[in-house]
Amino acid sequence: MSEFKLTTVEEFEAATERLLETGAKVGADAWQFRVKNQTPHCKFGEEGVCCRICSMGPCRITKKAPRGICGCDVHGIVGRNYLKFTAGGSATHSDHGREICHTLYESSADGCYQVKDPEKLIRIAKEWGVETEGKDIYDLAHEVAEMGLWEYGKPFGTQRFLKRAPQSQQELWEKNELAPRAIDREVSCSLHMAHMGCSSLPEALIKQSIRAGLSDGWGGSMMGTEFSDVLFGTPKPIDTEANLGVMVEENVNIVVHGHDPSLSEMVCEYADSPEMIAYAKEMGAKGITVSGVCCTSNEVAMRRGIPMAGNFLQQENVVLTGACEAIVVDVQCIFPALGPLSKCFHTKFITTSPIAQMPDSEFIRFDAKTADEKAKLIVKTAIENFKNRKPELVHIPQLKQKATVGYSVEAIIKCLDGVANSQVDEMGTVKPLLQCVTSGVLRGAVAMVGCNNPRIRPDLAHIELMKKLIANDIVIIASGCSAQAAAKAGLMDKRAKDICGDGLKRVCELADIPPVLHMGSCVDISRMMILASELAKCAGTHVSQLPVVGCAPEWMSEKAVSIGNYVIGTGIDTFLGVDPYVSGSSEIAEILTNGTREWVEAAFTVEKDIDKLGDAMIARIEEKRAALGI
Amino acid sequence: MSEFKLTTVEEFEAATERLLETGAKVGADAWQFRVKNQTPHCKFGEEGVCCRICSMGPCRITKKAPRGICGCDVHGIVGRNYLKFTAGGSATHSDHGREICHTLYESSADGCYQVKDPEKLIRIAKEWGVETEGKDIYDLAHEVAEMGLWEYGKPFGTQRFLKRAPQSQQELWEKNELAPRAIDREVSCSLHMAHMGCSSLPEALIKQSIRAGLSDGWGGSMMGTEFSDVLFGTPKPIDTEANLGVMVEENVNIVVHGHDPSLSEMVCEYADSPEMIAYAKEMGAKGITVSGVCCTSNEVAMRRGIPMAGNFLQQENVVLTGACEAIVVDVQCIFPALGPLSKCFHTKFITTSPIAQMPDSEFIRFDAKTADEKAKLIVKTAIENFKNRKPELVHIPQLKQKATVGYSVEAIIKCLDGVANSQVDEMGTVKPLLQCVTSGVLRGAVAMVGCNNPRIRPDLAHIELMKKLIANDIVIIASGCSAQAAAKAGLMDKRAKDICGDGLKRVCELADIPPVLHMGSCVDISRMMILASELAKCAGTHVSQLPVVGCAPEWMSEKAVSIGNYVIGTGIDTFLGVDPYVSGSSEIAEILTNGTREWVEAAFTVEKDIDKLGDAMIARIEEKRAALGI
Repeated sequence: MSEFKLTTVEEFEAATERLLETGAKVGADAWQFRVKNQTPHCKFGEEGVCCRICSMGPCRITKKAPRGICGCDVHGIVGRNYLKFTAGGSATHSDHGREICHTLYESSADGCYQVKDPEKLIRIAKEWGVETEGKDIYDLAHEVAEMGLWEYGKPFGTQRFLKRAPQSQQELWEKNELAPRAIDREVSCSLHMAHMGCSSLPEALIKQSIRAGLSDGWGGSMMGTEFSDVLFGTPKPIDTEANLGVMVEENVNIVVHGHDPSLSEMVCEYADSPEMIAYAKEMGAKGITVSGVCCTSNEVAMRRGIPMAGNFLQQENVVLTGACEAIVVDVQCIFPALGPLSKCFHTKFITTSPIAQMPDSEFIRFDAKTADEKAKLIVKTAIENFKNRKPELVHIPQLKQKATVGYSVEAIIKCLDGVANSQVDEMGTVKPLLQCVTSGVLRGAVAMVGCNNPRIRPDLAHIELMKKLIANDIVIIASGCSAQAAAKAGLMDKRAKDICGDGLKRVCELADIPPVLHMGSCVDISRMMILASELAKCAGTHVSQLPVVGCAPEWMSEKAVSIGNYVIGTGIDTFLGVDPYVSGSSEIAEILTNGTREWVEAAFTVEKDIDKLGDAMIARIEEKRAALGI
Repeated sequence: MSEFKLTTVEEFEAATERLLETGAKVGADAWQFRVKNQTPHCKFGEEGVCCRICSMGPCRITKKAPRGICGCDVHGIVGRNYLKFTAGGSATHSDHGREICHTLYESSADGCYQVKDPEKLIRIAKEWGVETEGKDIYDLAHEVAEMGLWEYGKPFGTQRFLKRAPQSQQELWEKNELAPRAIDREVSCSLHMAHMGCSSLPEALIKQSIRAGLSDGWGGSMMGTEFSDVLFGTPKPIDTEANLGVMVEENVNIVVHGHDPSLSEMVCEYADSPEMIAYAKEMGAKGITVSGVCCTSNEVAMRRGIPMAGNFLQQENVVLTGACEAIVVDVQCIFPALGPLSKCFHTKFITTSPIAQMPDSEFIRFDAKTADEKAKLIVKTAIENFKNRKPELVHIPQLKQKATVGYSVEAIIKCLDGVANSQVDEMGTVKPLLQCVTSGVLRGAVAMVGCNNPRIRPDLAHIELMKKLIANDIVIIASGCSAQAAAKAGLMDKRAKDICGDGLKRVCELADIPPVLHMGSCVDISRMMILASELAKCAGTHVSQLPVVGCAPEWMSEKAVSIGNYVIGTGIDTFLGVDPYVSGSSEIAEILTNGTREWVEAAFTVEKDIDKLGDAMIARIEEKRAALGI
């Protein structure tokens, strides 16, 4: 037990360096080189002051040219770009949720997809006012799935799940016209507002950004999470491992990458079948190892304990090991670079979704109806590719850490039940957690989320911030690539309690949890919204009063901005390490870092210095505590 | 009659010069100056090779840096930008259509909005399989409106109106997965595909652009047009006038600008009321003149004969007359410049839609439920502003032309009935038109559409192309700012027959029509799709075989690109005078100018030289004729 030691970012980097040496042998490109080619970035773009919304331009705002050709000023341009960025993220997350709704709609007792958590389905059905008594579970699944699908396009009313938020936040949404209507409508409305000659008023643009974000977090993403749980099981604590060392040289290595569990679940299912394992052996391998990259990895780690090969900026590394027979992807955050890179190795780069079609890939179209045969074909393709390995190129860095993952809200509550006194305490609530916070044993919580971004030394911000926060008795809930950074470092090993402050350490020991709780993929940030809401309801406060903040120190995608909008929209101050292309407008920056408080009681802080970012979060948490008198 | 003479672009420009002199006195900015400040444009943006889709960038493709940080190549970047541009336009048009659906849903016998064309409503209801017998017209309106609203978000199936297209085109859509599903879904799907790490395959990106475009043209826009007709009447030929000279110095001048007729119709209604006219007189004016700018102008000109003050690049001119009491706007193509400009004059700049909120405007929020009181308030505000005119700044250029407008498909068919022989010919069809084309009396038709763009000398391309085409016996159907250019020039005066070729001249005389037929606003390009479809069905050909092409020589907005996609998607070759930011990718350019033929039997031509553009269209029309053997 005493051997436990965090893996350092320097060790990650050394491993990457070694892999890049292999890459150099085969003429492989890598993001590290492309970053050099693309630096310095265009400063107009970085500041958000460039407008390409119509073909009169492009226009760029400078002192000499303070307005675009249409007369739009810098605040309108930056604001529109921000709104469009948000809409891109909201559409993307929500479309993932839609796919899950469709998968649920296709579920059947003898089909490719079953309902693995009927209790959760029944709970949601009741919440939505659906009669559940005496109903076949698949009839119920189809009814609820269809209701979910209508949430994308219903002409009237607002999102069903908004009712899960504390009354106080719902009232703010109503009052400020922030309650999202149909999810896709908010996307279209955003694009309409940002069209040439529509809105240029900063307040209007940011309000719509928040509304579009909320339609993601409390709409599309929340359905994505909830129905994934219904289909694939609600995560509960499970042991796994993280980092490239999870790949096994003697085995057929299949790497699943992307976001939607519909594909990866099926691939895992087949890769684990005796038939396929036998086939792998026949082809000269010892077995099959499925590991994951990015959020797909989070999905299957949380539910199956499938090991995590790496996060976003490690996706090329899995190919560079020379031991990856197939990298199988669905949607989002998949480097098009994997196409040409895979050609330098024997790796099959298999795309599966019409949403994400890329050059130099093998397209095996995946859908709910033929999921089984397609998954089988994919696994077989990988197995048959084992023989094509070039042994001289094979090198798997022997870095990995143990991690306990799977902390859905339901799982967290169950852990808390374990420490509650069943004689006195109400079970099945977040009250024990609240008591820890109120008493000061825990100072608060930080939701660590988001991607990697070469603008930040990869993983360093995630890991350093987490170390600092847990040392200060602040518990971390993490998702997405942030969660994987934590796992790779060892922060999801229960033994990491030893680097926590005394309070958090005691909580970790009592509840038998690591100090950084893996809550899932990026759509699963909706879980965090539910947890925060439950805490606020339990405490009788607004969400904004809780000593809880959000943090995305290395974010890069449109989704992250959508998330940011719904996190502040839910009343949670959010700290960013990368500026969302808004520095060019003082008005937009002011609204985002302060003005939104008037509407939703929370705002953004952007701070590129990691140390200061950590201090700012701790200070904010302590302020919130002081205001509550705890 | 012999006095008829076209107004030249030089005359337009002289009038503008004079107005800019007034502007100079009061320190007014104008687009002419801003263009200078913004030139030269960023070449990365112009070529479409700049990517800001995630915050790792912005990335720009050069020889030195052939891929973005994610590894996306130039074709993927240009293609994604094109898809996003299309989605912006599709969302915008379609959201306009949605507003009209909502207005129809709010219509009632004694409310603000009535059903003015119940026959058309019943026709659509029957087409959609709704029982109409014995149903109250407002019950029917609400039922059909709700069905229309569901077209935006239904989880299953494709757009209802697709069935209006010839079977051959429907089959192409099915086969190539181009048949649009729910309108908003296509928007969200587009943004998802263009998200970081999703699609970068050119074919996939362009196919989705076409599908998103079709969801506009055969979905949102078509509903916008059809239900506007139901609410406000289906246009029929009506006389009006065009150009700034329609403003009347002694009157209160209210200028309506934007796109959605719900607002402008109400403003016209109240401005025409004895109560308001009396009030205007009380305030020292002789009366009230409502004139229009941009597509709102087209809407009220087509239905009420309201004069057209000007098109897109003339919007600042109406304020510069010093005689505009209020410029009342709803959505799209409204210069934010009108805010500061109006402050240089007495003009009230009144914004009315939550979708288009702008600084330095007075926001009078308009909605279907309170339309009457808001319209009244707007008209009163304008009247009360008459006294604030600065007489020394008043100058209305005395330029205007007569125009006959209002050529809906229904109206065109009625005109054709007038020339058909009722003894032999079937009435109520496009057959007479087809016969004119088949016989060669007309060589073909061109749909002239789209905006102005300072990249092109304003209106010149529209007018010169139309002159050339009608001289070659090609009839023009026009909409949007192109139609207004024609009207300002005099090409919608029936006397313009005299500058046509002999064949077209004869048709104009027989049918008593001008050679350029005003079909409405930019959403009304859906009318053109119906007309082309009817012609193809009547001829028993594919749409693509007809000697018909589309042309947008001065386009500038995202909507225009969405339109372009659905026009080629419908099988009609489309000629552009402005490049849609795709020149940076040989692959995307190839697909758009040729590759799409494989899927939809039509493609784009981009040609900046107006003369060559005209020649190319004539050549294409003659090719089509030759292929048909006519």
